[in-house]
Amino acid sequence: MAERSSIELERLRDRIDEVDKELLSLLRRRLDLVSEVGVIKHEQGLPIYAPKREAAMLMKRRDEATLMGVPPQLIEDLLRRIMRESYASENDVGFKCINPDVGPVVIVGGAGKLGTLFSQLFRLSGYEVRILDKQDWPNAEAIFSGAGVVVVSVPIHDTTQVIERLPTLPDDCVLLDLTSIKQAPLAAMLARHPGPVVGLHPMFGPDLASLAKQVVVVCHGREERKYAWLLEQIRIWGARLHEASAAEHDQAMQLVQAMRHFTAFVYGAHLRRERADLDQLLQFSSPIYRLELAMVGRLFAQDARLYGDIIFSQPDTLARARHYLERYQESLKLLERGDKAEFEAQFDEIAQWFGDFAQQFQSESGNMLLSANDNRCES
Amino acid sequence: MAERSSIELERLRDRIDEVDKELLSLLRRRLDLVSEVGVIKHEQGLPIYAPKREAAMLMKRRDEATLMGVPPQLIEDLLRRIMRESYASENDVGFKCINPDVGPVVIVGGAGKLGTLFSQLFRLSGYEVRILDKQDWPNAEAIFSGAGVVVVSVPIHDTTQVIERLPTLPDDCVLLDLTSIKQAPLAAMLARHPGPVVGLHPMFGPDLASLAKQVVVVCHGREERKYAWLLEQIRIWGARLHEASAAEHDQAMQLVQAMRHFTAFVYGAHLRRERADLDQLLQFSSPIYRLELAMVGRLFAQDARLYGDIIFSQPDTLARARHYLERYQESLKLLERGDKAEFEAQFDEIAQWFGDFAQQFQSESGNMLLSANDNRCES
Repeated sequence: MAERSSIELERLRDRIDEVDKELLSLLRRRLDLVSEVGVIKHEQGLPIYAPKREAAMLMKRRDEATLMGVPPQLIEDLLRRIMRESYASENDVGFKCINPDVGPVVIVGGAGKLGTLFSQLFRLSGYEVRILDKQDWPNAEAIFSGAGVVVVSVPIHDTTQVIERLPTLPDDCVLLDLTSIKQAPLAAMLARHPGPVVGLHPMFGPDLASLAKQVVVVCHGREERKYAWLLEQIRIWGARLHEASAAEHDQAMQLVQAMRHFTAFVYGAHLRRERADLDQLLQFSSPIYRLELAMVGRLFAQDARLYGDIIFSQPDTLARARHYLERYQESLKLLERGDKAEFEAQFDEIAQWFGDFAQQFQSESGNMLLSANDNRCES
Repeated sequence: MAERSSIELERLRDRIDEVDKELLSLLRRRLDLVSEVGVIKHEQGLPIYAPKREAAMLMKRRDEATLMGVPPQLIEDLLRRIMRESYASENDVGFKCINPDVGPVVIVGGAGKLGTLFSQLFRLSGYEVRILDKQDWPNAEAIFSGAGVVVVSVPIHDTTQVIERLPTLPDDCVLLDLTSIKQAPLAAMLARHPGPVVGLHPMFGPDLASLAKQVVVVCHGREERKYAWLLEQIRIWGARLHEASAAEHDQAMQLVQAMRHFTAFVYGAHLRRERADLDQLLQFSSPIYRLELAMVGRLFAQDARLYGDIIFSQPDTLARARHYLERYQESLKLLERGDKAEFEAQFDEIAQWFGDFAQQFQSESGNMLLSANDNRCES
């Protein structure tokens, strides 16, 4: 009986393998079709990310899945993952050039990671790109001559100085920066260049294969109509633009970005000083536990100067960090007094303040934790 | 030209839709095959999660993908997601019963979420399950009579009292708890019951469709050989067991679980007091920014008492929380002095201490952020 069962098990597994091979052929066909779509989109200058078509298509597939007894969330998750690959492959055919008559695009700091990403995107769209890195300043005049766009993509602490150092640019040249703070660079650009100016903050790391669905924050500076084409170009790359004032942007970045980095830094220092055994901590790995550790640890795989810049570059961060300290001390007093009732009362007040967002955050992170568990393997 | 292109685009999209429909049929076939596998596994008492077969299968598919020009990571991600569904569907056929002769399984707190999950699993495996909830204590004697297993699944702050309140259990009855701290409950169980005792900590929330790949921490108490069958039963449900001493377990939980919850609580209090505009913060949503917010906000969608218990239940947490405060104050001084150089030096020291883990954490969280971006839709 056991033997008959194991023969039967083998037979079923072979059939599953065949299904999976068919899946591979389907994927191959789908990627080919998508690259044909890419060619047409390129010719017509259509954005690679078409949110409405995507949503409508997913809804149809979900309905069909339900009729066939396939869990609708399964087909949605699979198609979203497949589309990620499709977006990346659409890069290969290049993008429509919205403004073919504009002068060369000069990327200051173009040898950095983010600068490299943007030079690729501009080149894939048919623009002439010139890179200016640290050692190229002696040739600055030649590099900037006739520039149609100047992109400043240098570390935060250098941004203002680099902007002040720019030569006089052609009147219609668009000057923009990609720094993750916006007030100071925007002010410096407006002071340096009397023509069109815009501040951008690409809300993503430089290691992306595609800009599809990524957010770029736009802080308008001057002569918006003269760089409208450039924003359209970024949309064609797949990104979503979010307009905000530089002040709004910087305040939001302080509350989440700077303070979360700062507290993660403190947590890293804490784990080290408590002589935590990271290997042992990971043995107890639940997805959420692992994620909590990963969100702290990932900071330290990155560049100290980048995070130093983000945390130290804005004077207001200090005030925020002091406020956080006050909250921490208040909460610690509850712990010292063992006042669980007051902790719970405050917890409920904060929960009320979060309102529907708490639920939304839980369900969003819940999906991510499920997917983290999928990726787990025997350690 | 534009019109011809859009007809062509429509034609390609129709073909993509056809491919996606074939994908749905494949999924239907695969789920059917997997449920046949489930029946055989049930008969043979094989665990639903077979890590070696899974790893070997994924490796083969990756190789085949490479030969066909399909990105290997794509097929791996898709198959992992499909397998999640397969694990959940294997629940439907039930599980082999490892110890059919054991007496009834009594779940104290069996009406709670975690208690409900475990009663389902025991029932799906053919055990007689009796639930004892708050109002059932007057009938305790009848409920516990002849019990083969007693599972204590009540809130942390009630666990010790509930254990002390248990009637005398049959000599061979296995007594276990599912609390997320282990030293106090284990000591209480050993004092109450002279027979087999074990402490378990299921490292997951109660909302799971399947235990596949989830970790259960095992803290041995007494007469291990008398509950070995029970651990095997949990393995058949798909979980991975991790053995640790109760002290090791509690220390690890303090360092990550209690302290991360505590600092998330403080962060929630901070955001509220700073009058953060959550809606606006989400407008600036990069995947990592959203995740940072979600990890704080998700706390407040949950039960204040549960988190109060986790944070207040262990006296050592206070000492840890004070140490963290010291680190915070030290770091704040760097910020006050504007001493970025020292910040960077300490950052590098912590990075060195994290060693290879920092890189590992970055790549793990990087995959999760990509998948979070897949799920983004126009807001």
